[in-house]
Amino acid sequence: MSQAPIKDNEVDIVIGALRSDLSSFFNEWRAYFSRFHLIIVKDPDLKEELKIPDGFSLNVYTKNDIDRIVGSTSISFSGYSCRYFGFLVSKKKYIISIDDDCHPAKDNKGNFVDAVAQHIENLTTPATPFFFNTLYDPYRDGADFVRGYPFSLRNGVNCALSCGLWLNLADLDAPTQALKPSERNNRYVDAVLTVPTAALLPVSGINIAFDREAVGPALFPALRLAEEGKVRWETIEDIWSGMCVKVICDHLGLGVKTGLPYVWRTDRGDAIESLKKEWEGVKLMEEVVPFLQSTMLPVTAATAEDCVVEMAKTVKQQLGSSNPVFGHAADSMLEWVRIWKTMGSRPS
Amino acid sequence: MSQAPIKDNEVDIVIGALRSDLSSFFNEWRAYFSRFHLIIVKDPDLKEELKIPDGFSLNVYTKNDIDRIVGSTSISFSGYSCRYFGFLVSKKKYIISIDDDCHPAKDNKGNFVDAVAQHIENLTTPATPFFFNTLYDPYRDGADFVRGYPFSLRNGVNCALSCGLWLNLADLDAPTQALKPSERNNRYVDAVLTVPTAALLPVSGINIAFDREAVGPALFPALRLAEEGKVRWETIEDIWSGMCVKVICDHLGLGVKTGLPYVWRTDRGDAIESLKKEWEGVKLMEEVVPFLQSTMLPVTAATAEDCVVEMAKTVKQQLGSSNPVFGHAADSMLEWVRIWKTMGSRPS
Repeated sequence: MSQAPIKDNEVDIVIGALRSDLSSFFNEWRAYFSRFHLIIVKDPDLKEELKIPDGFSLNVYTKNDIDRIVGSTSISFSGYSCRYFGFLVSKKKYIISIDDDCHPAKDNKGNFVDAVAQHIENLTTPATPFFFNTLYDPYRDGADFVRGYPFSLRNGVNCALSCGLWLNLADLDAPTQALKPSERNNRYVDAVLTVPTAALLPVSGINIAFDREAVGPALFPALRLAEEGKVRWETIEDIWSGMCVKVICDHLGLGVKTGLPYVWRTDRGDAIESLKKEWEGVKLMEEVVPFLQSTMLPVTAATAEDCVVEMAKTVKQQLGSSNPVFGHAADSMLEWVRIWKTMGSRPS
Repeated sequence: MSQAPIKDNEVDIVIGALRSDLSSFFNEWRAYFSRFHLIIVKDPDLKEELKIPDGFSLNVYTKNDIDRIVGSTSISFSGYSCRYFGFLVSKKKYIISIDDDCHPAKDNKGNFVDAVAQHIENLTTPATPFFFNTLYDPYRDGADFVRGYPFSLRNGVNCALSCGLWLNLADLDAPTQALKPSERNNRYVDAVLTVPTAALLPVSGINIAFDREAVGPALFPALRLAEEGKVRWETIEDIWSGMCVKVICDHLGLGVKTGLPYVWRTDRGDAIESLKKEWEGVKLMEEVVPFLQSTMLPVTAATAEDCVVEMAKTVKQQLGSSNPVFGHAADSMLEWVRIWKTMGSRPS
């Protein structure tokens, strides 16, 4: 299960641009980003021109490109969803995606962490979803499998998704963020772990990396709240997609890791303003979690595309009548797979 | 799900004494142990008298007490298994048990950690086994539930078992310890997490705490290796029992946490000598893990005692013919429940 090291040209870093001046963002990340190719997708709602400093190898995509390449579609690429367009146009094996309100974080020793390198390490070392290792990731330097860990499970499986975390502003939902506006996450937990098979987690899209060839078709902007906002705590598209990916990884025998790397997040938006909206996400998760916990995919679903199509059918059947947002999500998932396949057949 | 604080007199600290001079052990732990009642169980194979410093409230139990109280039994209380006798004679709600080769550990700031206080915190704050929280234990000071975490699951469930970890000498198995004699665990991971429902973990008995009323009957010395030794890497009784407890907690809707507190462990025994024995534990785990992963308990099993009896029956039926060690384990589990019930009906 050991893999060849990733070459720099196997990675695209995808940034959804929700604000125009990205100068400080790129300058702060320069040491970690500059070796890689970048895909910048401008939020189609953003009018101002992007400001990006020199010295990066990148492609910028705008509303015009989305309209030209995807054409007429029911999928919305506005707000945070714009970055998914980057997943679509990439031809690379691995994607790393970090929100534009993130800064490099420092570890417990005060050293800046290389989030890109950590994501790559997570994706290229095995995941161990079938038995929990109490010393966390056994493949980390200095760690190991503990007494009692079956030897037959120590080779692990391929890791398809790496979920990083957040210091300072944590990834809370709108009500929590508004009710605890001064709450900050200061604890740097020096661990990576595989989320066990069958356990679901709320994947945050703020700071993730994934094997695009293995699970790319399952990272989509499908579940859109009626009052979706331009701040993370008012979105849920990544949570929905992330739970679908986890179900699919469990089905396909792939791993999902969470923990390192951290990014440092700063405020954007007004939490109190968010409280004035009725945040539909709270209500939806009460239906989504039990539904996805009991979703079984057919053995004939052998690829991420197959799995997404099967999930979309089940979503439509079982959740479609409870809330129109689910029916729309199912349609978007099918649409996504259709677009994904079309893109896959285009020349590089 | 919030609980009343634990009173000092609701806790027994149980120490299995595998060596006679416990002076330095108790002096090092004095600041954390002295408020609580202690139960010391002397390894029946140990001939020398125990040396324990003054200033503790404790009862010492020896081979004579075991013979007198338990009587004729197929269960062996020798070696690490002696501490289980302490679980049996305790009348307290909570047990904390730490091996006698452990020292108080220091956290990342260089402060000694109070392992007792951390175990109590783990047991008295809710566990969240039905959905993974990416910021780990949401009940820790400064932590919270992340976006996407269903509100209906935020109350959590009672935590029945708290598994602590180890710095310096990690809890490796005999082959790993022998093959990597200089490997040490230096990473202090500042986290507590609930192990998700349906995920199994290798519970190490080195540093644990549990709700004796809820799951006491499921912590037993049942699986004994033919060549079980006096060093942790040559034992497996805690791994077997711990996996049974996890299955039972999942069935009863109770939580299991792992992570903090750490203890510092020093060497005892000769890893290379251990390598000369054929360590049966490696082979057994290959059968144990898939078996326990598929074990379903009947809905009629409503207490830990019921669950152990049902598990023993299944072990006998399904594993009994593959290796005599399993048949003996099943017998010991039934015997344990019988003794546990007898002890429970004795006056305090």
